[in-house]
Amino acid sequence: MFMPVGTNATVKALDPDDLDEVGAQIILANTYHLYLRPGHDRIRRLGGLHRFMGWQRPILTDSGGFQVVSLADLRTVDHDGVTFRSHLDGSTHRLTPERSIEIQEALGADVAVAFDQPVRPHASTRAEVEEAMTRTHAWAERSLEAHRRTDQALFGIIQGGLEPDLRASSTQAIAALAFDGLCIGGLAGDETPAQRRAALDVVVPLLASDPRPRYLMGLGSPLDMLDAVDRGVDLFDSVLPARVARNGTLWVPGGKINIHNARFADDPGPVLDGCPCRLCRHFSRAYLAHLFRARELLSYRLATCHNLTFTLDFMARIRQAIAAGSFQGFARAAVAHAVPGAATRASA
Amino acid sequence: MFMPVGTNATVKALDPDDLDEVGAQIILANTYHLYLRPGHDRIRRLGGLHRFMGWQRPILTDSGGFQVVSLADLRTVDHDGVTFRSHLDGSTHRLTPERSIEIQEALGADVAVAFDQPVRPHASTRAEVEEAMTRTHAWAERSLEAHRRTDQALFGIIQGGLEPDLRASSTQAIAALAFDGLCIGGLAGDETPAQRRAALDVVVPLLASDPRPRYLMGLGSPLDMLDAVDRGVDLFDSVLPARVARNGTLWVPGGKINIHNARFADDPGPVLDGCPCRLCRHFSRAYLAHLFRARELLSYRLATCHNLTFTLDFMARIRQAIAAGSFQGFARAAVAHAVPGAATRASA
Repeated sequence: MFMPVGTNATVKALDPDDLDEVGAQIILANTYHLYLRPGHDRIRRLGGLHRFMGWQRPILTDSGGFQVVSLADLRTVDHDGVTFRSHLDGSTHRLTPERSIEIQEALGADVAVAFDQPVRPHASTRAEVEEAMTRTHAWAERSLEAHRRTDQALFGIIQGGLEPDLRASSTQAIAALAFDGLCIGGLAGDETPAQRRAALDVVVPLLASDPRPRYLMGLGSPLDMLDAVDRGVDLFDSVLPARVARNGTLWVPGGKINIHNARFADDPGPVLDGCPCRLCRHFSRAYLAHLFRARELLSYRLATCHNLTFTLDFMARIRQAIAAGSFQGFARAAVAHAVPGAATRASA
Repeated sequence: MFMPVGTNATVKALDPDDLDEVGAQIILANTYHLYLRPGHDRIRRLGGLHRFMGWQRPILTDSGGFQVVSLADLRTVDHDGVTFRSHLDGSTHRLTPERSIEIQEALGADVAVAFDQPVRPHASTRAEVEEAMTRTHAWAERSLEAHRRTDQALFGIIQGGLEPDLRASSTQAIAALAFDGLCIGGLAGDETPAQRRAALDVVVPLLASDPRPRYLMGLGSPLDMLDAVDRGVDLFDSVLPARVARNGTLWVPGGKINIHNARFADDPGPVLDGCPCRLCRHFSRAYLAHLFRARELLSYRLATCHNLTFTLDFMARIRQAIAAGSFQGFARAAVAHAVPGAATRASA
């Protein structure tokens, strides 16, 4: 399954009826963003995240660790947690494993995630990767200890960068704890596809007899997900399909189209024949091209509906192929038909 | 009836299903904007405006005259037409009555409007108002002469500013022509409500036995429309309800609320109890306040749905009161309850 990302308690440009229509079964919301604005206590007082955003299906909240590293200013990491400045107003905040769990329990998602310290594998030394991993393991135990809600699952995060021994060690350490699911962190970043495969080929065999879901955080291009499913991954999230949609890139089986291209200005056909999305049901490529040129708000919603429909339909067809025992044939055909495979990093 | 404005072949932030849901029965699209982008010939080739924007109910296109005066640069008006520079790219264009009709026939709306020369009453001398009026009358005849489509109604525009004798003269001149409806132009601008009433009290009695619809162009605040209905007007358009919505102003029977106000950040109630719109059915004031603070795209759609629902419901209740013979009582109650009455000029 792929989870669309609702950074600020909204999947950008869509409402919950749109999310139903594109086939979303679970979405991700960002703990870091919601903690800073509008605040987790406010969301708790208003009845929790589901009621707040009008979405009754499952929600997963991430730990906040990734955004602290990627967005916040002047962060200092110590044994106990992270102190950082808000990217919104410069105010100082502190997140610890206990605080992240407290925030996520207040938000009330169906799945919470243990607080971790991600690092960018390529941009980090082995010593940095190892130190962050060791800290992530200690924080995983503290997250489990702090977690109280019995109506909320808790997933742990495997780190360890691109070093096979560290990745293996982290897999064993996190899998040994009583988490409900296992996240694979520190990928979908600056690594090559081959490096990502190599990391997964360390992690997944160690989990061969483990029934818990395996969630590769931050991956969202169809071909990348196909490859990861082939290596044993179950769950994904990314802002990628929605972000490229807002820039006018529409995913189709042949790859992708840039709706700004002049040849679409007179094209009466839908972006994708037979596509059940709101854009393709009602409008031509020419109309979408016009909306983007005129910078009309409707362009973002329609393009996002299409790319999320495409992505979620692709995942549904992967599940059908697995159930039918025809995954390898499906995967070969998908690669041959060049479904969108941009390996661009795209995290909220 | 009130017509939401779809400047660029989209009512900003809404799709046609949203328009159905807010109760729109007819929308207005701007000839000037669609002529410049994406071009009327392109829309004609793509099957006309209804198919292009996916809206199957009626559409009225304005004449382009108002935008030429309010948006275009370096315009020169002569006996035959207007030469102007596009506000988009500075390119030079010429509109004449014949050209405006040709464009509107290509767009294929259900109602076209004769090309006119509006003036701002307060900012114009009597001589300027009279010259523009005389030109508008000549252009009205040329518009009628040029109009070919038998599946498209054509409305004429009464001008004459705030001078009672000119307004009366224009009413008689335009009403004498074979238009399907009569627009009242040059109001909803810089005049006071009293001046607008005085102008209507010249126009409407001269049309007392005329069965054609009377359309006051550019008016959109509920109290202003109520007042104009009381004076005999049938039809309105304005970007006002949608524009203020996108700024976070929500219309309610008590007047209006500014969702940016701090007191709404924790308000669990809907913007308006019992309102059938998408915003009020599913979301709290607190959620909308959050979306606006986070500058999320969904905020514009939800707020626009509310204000258009409010406006169109208000007009529906006016029609019901007229049908029931209780209009005066309805109007007194509406004024006492201070429905939104901002007399702000708001034209696309």
